[in-house]
Amino acid sequence: MSDPLPVVRRVADLRAVIAGWRKDGLSVGLVPTMGALHDGHFSLVRASTEQNDRTCVTLFVNPKQFGEGEDFGTYPRDEKTDAAALSALGPDLLYAPAGDEMYPVQMATSVSVPGLGDWLEGEFRPGFFTGVATVVTKLLLQALPDRAYFGEKDYQQLCLVRRLTTDLNIPVEIIGCPIIREASGLALSSRNAYLTDAQGAIAPGLSLALRQAAAEIAGGSDIAAAIEAATGTILEAGFANVDYVAVRDAASLQPATLHDGNQRILAAAWLGDVRLIDNREI
Amino acid sequence: MSDPLPVVRRVADLRAVIAGWRKDGLSVGLVPTMGALHDGHFSLVRASTEQNDRTCVTLFVNPKQFGEGEDFGTYPRDEKTDAAALSALGPDLLYAPAGDEMYPVQMATSVSVPGLGDWLEGEFRPGFFTGVATVVTKLLLQALPDRAYFGEKDYQQLCLVRRLTTDLNIPVEIIGCPIIREASGLALSSRNAYLTDAQGAIAPGLSLALRQAAAEIAGGSDIAAAIEAATGTILEAGFANVDYVAVRDAASLQPATLHDGNQRILAAAWLGDVRLIDNREI
Repeated sequence: MSDPLPVVRRVADLRAVIAGWRKDGLSVGLVPTMGALHDGHFSLVRASTEQNDRTCVTLFVNPKQFGEGEDFGTYPRDEKTDAAALSALGPDLLYAPAGDEMYPVQMATSVSVPGLGDWLEGEFRPGFFTGVATVVTKLLLQALPDRAYFGEKDYQQLCLVRRLTTDLNIPVEIIGCPIIREASGLALSSRNAYLTDAQGAIAPGLSLALRQAAAEIAGGSDIAAAIEAATGTILEAGFANVDYVAVRDAASLQPATLHDGNQRILAAAWLGDVRLIDNREI
Repeated sequence: MSDPLPVVRRVADLRAVIAGWRKDGLSVGLVPTMGALHDGHFSLVRASTEQNDRTCVTLFVNPKQFGEGEDFGTYPRDEKTDAAALSALGPDLLYAPAGDEMYPVQMATSVSVPGLGDWLEGEFRPGFFTGVATVVTKLLLQALPDRAYFGEKDYQQLCLVRRLTTDLNIPVEIIGCPIIREASGLALSSRNAYLTDAQGAIAPGLSLALRQAAAEIAGGSDIAAAIEAATGTILEAGFANVDYVAVRDAASLQPATLHDGNQRILAAAWLGDVRLIDNREI
């Protein structure tokens, strides 16, 4: 049995706890999450507890990063289960603010990253990355950690967070952590909970198509041809629709048409009304 | 003779100096400016040196807050004169970054304040407040001062900076300082240097019209009528055009049509190709 994880819900209380740590000269890691925690999140928490004296996990289902018709209302929420699972991992604090603590009614300011925030996910989810950029800026400035941890599962989000922290001079080191996958290859995601058994059997096809395309491109295949083949493979696996399969520069996410520098292949596809994303290093 | 003011030009150097102050437990005030310093700026520096152990003045003519056809190229720049004048006031550091230190080529992120940033000045200078919000966010996060000082001359800017620091949880206290005026009533502004002698004789008419309107409204006059009268007075004084005369809530800058709570009257008008702004408490 581990002790229950202390929880704070207000910025002032969060800052008071962290100020105490700072007074003792301790380093601080922050792990922002929307809850519905799985082994992907736990890997971030482990990385933070290894690299910092103190770790704060945040739990906030951010309304600003859900579009109309998206799943804000149904997104899985179970703080008790999340907190219990975290306790075993040894973070030091859970910060779980209410909506009006994060966004008081007068809140007007937004942070956006034109370009990087408009491509890929940004194209299919308008406003998504402005919501992400705004909440991440707020969380980082509320806590002012030494390091903050984000999964490569949301690879474009990781690139965007790196970009905005550099651009706005937020004094934090952003640490990206590898995707955690099921044995089938399926990338862990809170939204996998939406999948029926039949969809769950199809879902790994996205990961496998990207793995194959990444290997082909790494081996010298034409990028456009590999993208087209992967798109076909994903549809044949049983996905209803492919939003995109794209090969991009791994840092800037600018389109990559030549075999040139570090690249990443990224995709989003629909299984019924569940939208899955995945990506692979090339 | 006072010692020359130390100057830093890089974020890393700024942070190193301030970290040294922090280590000694000293409080820090920041006075952001675009240079071309006058008694208005000096009043901010004095307020900061009185209220903080250490004061850093920043000097950066921010390209992002100038629109096309505006005066970025001709804005008065004379760092040597500014630094010499500041030395007599006793701030501890001048931070004067180059353009590419503030905005490296990859810079993409922007901070905006929809609503507050779209009205009044925002309506007549599209993009202006996004430029202001972005550079102020950066300067505050580069220095992380305890307090930052802004003049009420740019009243809407002051309201916007208060809004964005609250909204983004930037841990700084924003201090607004009263407008400094010439004996004629003309509010001090770096752009007054653009005025010919003849225009300089007309310029105080803006301030006087607002003073009269503020007194009338405070005395119970109809707000719309007072605005119309002030607009006429400004044009009769010799201004070529009035962008706006407006009465707003003093904190939110929402339109104010009733005699209700704290209010502010604000205006912008053109003298030839020089645009002047001013405002008064009601």
